[in-house]
Amino acid sequence: MRTLFDIADEPSADNADVLYDAISRKLAEPSFRPRALFDRFRIEVLATTDDPLDDLAAHAALAADPGFGGRVLPTFRPDAYLDPDAAGFGERVRRLVETTGQATSFAGYLKALRERRAHFVAHGAVSADHGVLEPYTTDLDPAAAQDLFAHAIDHRLDARAAREFRGHMLFQMAKMSVDDGLVMTIHAGVRRNHHRPTFDAFGPDTGHDIPVRTDYTENLRPLLEAFGTAPGLHIVLFTVDETSFSREIAPLAGFYPSLYIGAPWWFLDAPDAILRFRSAVTETAGFYRSSGFIDDTRAFLSIPARHDVSRRMDASFLARLVVEGRISPPTARRIARDLVDAIPREVFKL
Amino acid sequence: MRTLFDIADEPSADNADVLYDAISRKLAEPSFRPRALFDRFRIEVLATTDDPLDDLAAHAALAADPGFGGRVLPTFRPDAYLDPDAAGFGERVRRLVETTGQATSFAGYLKALRERRAHFVAHGAVSADHGVLEPYTTDLDPAAAQDLFAHAIDHRLDARAAREFRGHMLFQMAKMSVDDGLVMTIHAGVRRNHHRPTFDAFGPDTGHDIPVRTDYTENLRPLLEAFGTAPGLHIVLFTVDETSFSREIAPLAGFYPSLYIGAPWWFLDAPDAILRFRSAVTETAGFYRSSGFIDDTRAFLSIPARHDVSRRMDASFLARLVVEGRISPPTARRIARDLVDAIPREVFKL
Amino acid sequence: MRTLFDIADEPSADNADVLYDAISRKLAEPSFRPRALFDRFRIEVLATTDDPLDDLAAHAALAADPGFGGRVLPTFRPDAYLDPDAAGFGERVRRLVETTGQATSFAGYLKALRERRAHFVAHGAVSADHGVLEPYTTDLDPAAAQDLFAHAIDHRLDARAAREFRGHMLFQMAKMSVDDGLVMTIHAGVRRNHHRPTFDAFGPDTGHDIPVRTDYTENLRPLLEAFGTAPGLHIVLFTVDETSFSREIAPLAGFYPSLYIGAPWWFLDAPDAILRFRSAVTETAGFYRSSGFIDDTRAFLSIPARHDVSRRMDASFLARLVVEGRISPPTARRIARDLVDAIPREVFKL
Repeated sequence: MRTLFDIADEPSADNADVLYDAISRKLAEPSFRPRALFDRFRIEVLATTDDPLDDLAAHAALAADPGFGGRVLPTFRPDAYLDPDAAGFGERVRRLVETTGQATSFAGYLKALRERRAHFVAHGAVSADHGVLEPYTTDLDPAAAQDLFAHAIDHRLDARAAREFRGHMLFQMAKMSVDDGLVMTIHAGVRRNHHRPTFDAFGPDTGHDIPVRTDYTENLRPLLEAFGTAPGLHIVLFTVDETSFSREIAPLAGFYPSLYIGAPWWFLDAPDAILRFRSAVTETAGFYRSSGFIDDTRAFLSIPARHDVSRRMDASFLARLVVEGRISPPTARRIARDLVDAIPREVFKL
Repeated sequence: MRTLFDIADEPSADNADVLYDAISRKLAEPSFRPRALFDRFRIEVLATTDDPLDDLAAHAALAADPGFGGRVLPTFRPDAYLDPDAAGFGERVRRLVETTGQATSFAGYLKALRERRAHFVAHGAVSADHGVLEPYTTDLDPAAAQDLFAHAIDHRLDARAAREFRGHMLFQMAKMSVDDGLVMTIHAGVRRNHHRPTFDAFGPDTGHDIPVRTDYTENLRPLLEAFGTAPGLHIVLFTVDETSFSREIAPLAGFYPSLYIGAPWWFLDAPDAILRFRSAVTETAGFYRSSGFIDDTRAFLSIPARHDVSRRMDASFLARLVVEGRISPPTARRIARDLVDAIPREVFKL
Repeated sequence: MRTLFDIADEPSADNADVLYDAISRKLAEPSFRPRALFDRFRIEVLATTDDPLDDLAAHAALAADPGFGGRVLPTFRPDAYLDPDAAGFGERVRRLVETTGQATSFAGYLKALRERRAHFVAHGAVSADHGVLEPYTTDLDPAAAQDLFAHAIDHRLDARAAREFRGHMLFQMAKMSVDDGLVMTIHAGVRRNHHRPTFDAFGPDTGHDIPVRTDYTENLRPLLEAFGTAPGLHIVLFTVDETSFSREIAPLAGFYPSLYIGAPWWFLDAPDAILRFRSAVTETAGFYRSSGFIDDTRAFLSIPARHDVSRRMDASFLARLVVEGRISPPTARRIARDLVDAIPREVFKL
């Protein structure tokens, strides 16, 4: 409010109309057009998340636009194609496999996913984003996977089998990331659409996604045993269960070279929570196994403030370590810079 | 010790007898009679927890006593009537249903519970208090509920069925709260009577109730889907599993208008724990989705000290936010007052 | 680095060779021989962990050596003899029972364990150390235990039965500790050898032991109901799931006289984690139900630094309580001394 709209007053019932009008006037100015803000915010890279069947024409058009020099990348987001419990799963997967010109089979499904990933890579994607309720992974034998797939597209999987299928597909996504280099981001542990009446009335993403306790150590083990030390693989783990930071995620990232600790996410991207995060992970995994700050906002105007908060809190954490004699000022300065530049650049292959 | 007994010395083996005698002398003074302390502590409302079959005659007598102007309310505490595993459950429920003059049936059982709640409301009760091991809820169909009930009163429920019954009855309690307006307090996650030999020798509440990990997001979902947005319903969640504050309880309270975050309870009502609580919930749910401080002490004399500690810690938390530039001093002052006055008054319908 | 090697420079790629050479020179000096360091570090007691079948000859030789006055004790570490899933379990147990001259039976197995413990006690052992994935305990009836044992030594236990056997044997270990006085240390909640390929290539203890969520309240209940108030029994609980400190371990230690809260262990023995630990347990269980600092390092040279860090953090925690007016300076000084002297001496019967 202060930086973008020159509003210093605390919002209240008294000044609500005045503030609303002031904001509206600003938003109508040319300097508040998206491209102008993109420049003003000095954004180097912005990534969208996209449906695997998206032709990415908008991305191609923007990349080809001589009037826009920014880097806007697509991200492969296949959740709805990997979860047999997702509404419309069978139909969606059939459309996916059709793109290969093959009959609907598990082999065709894997082929189609690989080809769509290649399509995203060709349009500049650097990562594939995976939202799951639990980060369960498993490596099924091909016959079992084929069998689950056949039942899944006809909606004939019980809860246990659906879990096995999802676990196998998260495993397959890691395998494909080893091959095509897409950074694998996994954000787990949120019960989506907790309040069905609100979902029925207003749809998804309406404020009632609620975190649940999440176990990483056992769930990710099959994936990490197979690919955790694969050269070039980058996995970034995001959680909203902060108990896992010191107990599971930092120890895992301390061992597996492929695994990075995602920035504090969603309910945890606020000042106190950011300091708790740094305190929880740093003594086990240091700074260089974290992703550095990346922002997942849907609110374009919030980007500078969010980066600012993150930088201030990391600076505050580093300053404490300096005051306590635990790191030297030059080291703190180096880490502060790396957390917003070298580290996310390396982790996300930018 | 300092405020009530003028004792400034640290207790030790050396001064134990002196302190004991000093305290005994004070306790014998008229100014230490319960009513005198009630006035001196400036207590506005004090609530007891009472058996559903209690006739509340003592409450009626006190309310009718012209010599006492305080507000002392009963609270409906039906745990032992809702849990088939509670000792004497069948017999107790039979006595409950008898109050309706009907035969023992599930419909009669619900009717009796409704009538006893009305009896409590008529005697000034504002809340119904529910202590459960896990906050599991479920909405059974009437035939299934009737069937479980029939088996429950004859002690023929296995562990799974007993859990279903308890879950259904917590759901029913929410439904009744929607109807009669009693604030529903739920405190979950304590394994009562952990050490059976101590229980056998000395009975319950003898120091060996031990917390367990508690999940709220999935367990409360059926209840919240049905009643979470019901006008006028107030549910206050208390926990001794502090991991649930940032992960589950604050996000739930951030969405469901009926849900309030209970003050840090029992093992968590101490200075450091109170600050951890505020840090864990405030960035997601703010101050106005918490219950404000209420005290559940059994030690009458501890009431002023407990409120004092709570106020100091909330003030300390707010002062930090002011120093960090996150809220203004006037806002901090408003919140500090509201946490001990407007908020608990509204949450508990006082 | 500073204290032992006079190295004040921060390590870097530039000075790596210089530092390596400086350290190598120091290590070759007579003052860096183990016995010289033992004296210089002013170690009063050092305990190894040993296989139950170890003859402890090295311990006997050291104890008999007139040239060494230090106290180096063996510790009974029977994990591999209690877990049917441990590689080579059947063969190992057969060798254990053979020491009794009896046929392989459950009674002989218990007898052998008792005798080996007596052998350790005779060589100065004060404790038995138990590392388990989960701290599950159960008291099986003798016939069931005998039956599980018979199957276990032939590798015919499924996962559930193996768990029952382990739970029964942890229970038995507590029973033996009641009899022979060995302090029982339990450290739970680590998935050992998370990355099989690394285990296959390099063996155990190669950096990929990863913590998992751990429940103590229910798991330890059978053991604590049977022995939790047994005179003279000391159990010290170590965890790497810090969520259990305030929720389970402190409340358990607050009630059971046999139970002590182990010092923050492994991933948690660093400055911030130590302060979180003290904050989490002290308000419920105080200082005198914790073990005081003991060190489990494999790096002999790290011992002084680790004790130094622990003492500084405890001193920092106590100083805060003094500044906040919560304890007096003399009390803080007494606790600071007791945490490194009287308390570990009493807890470990030294």
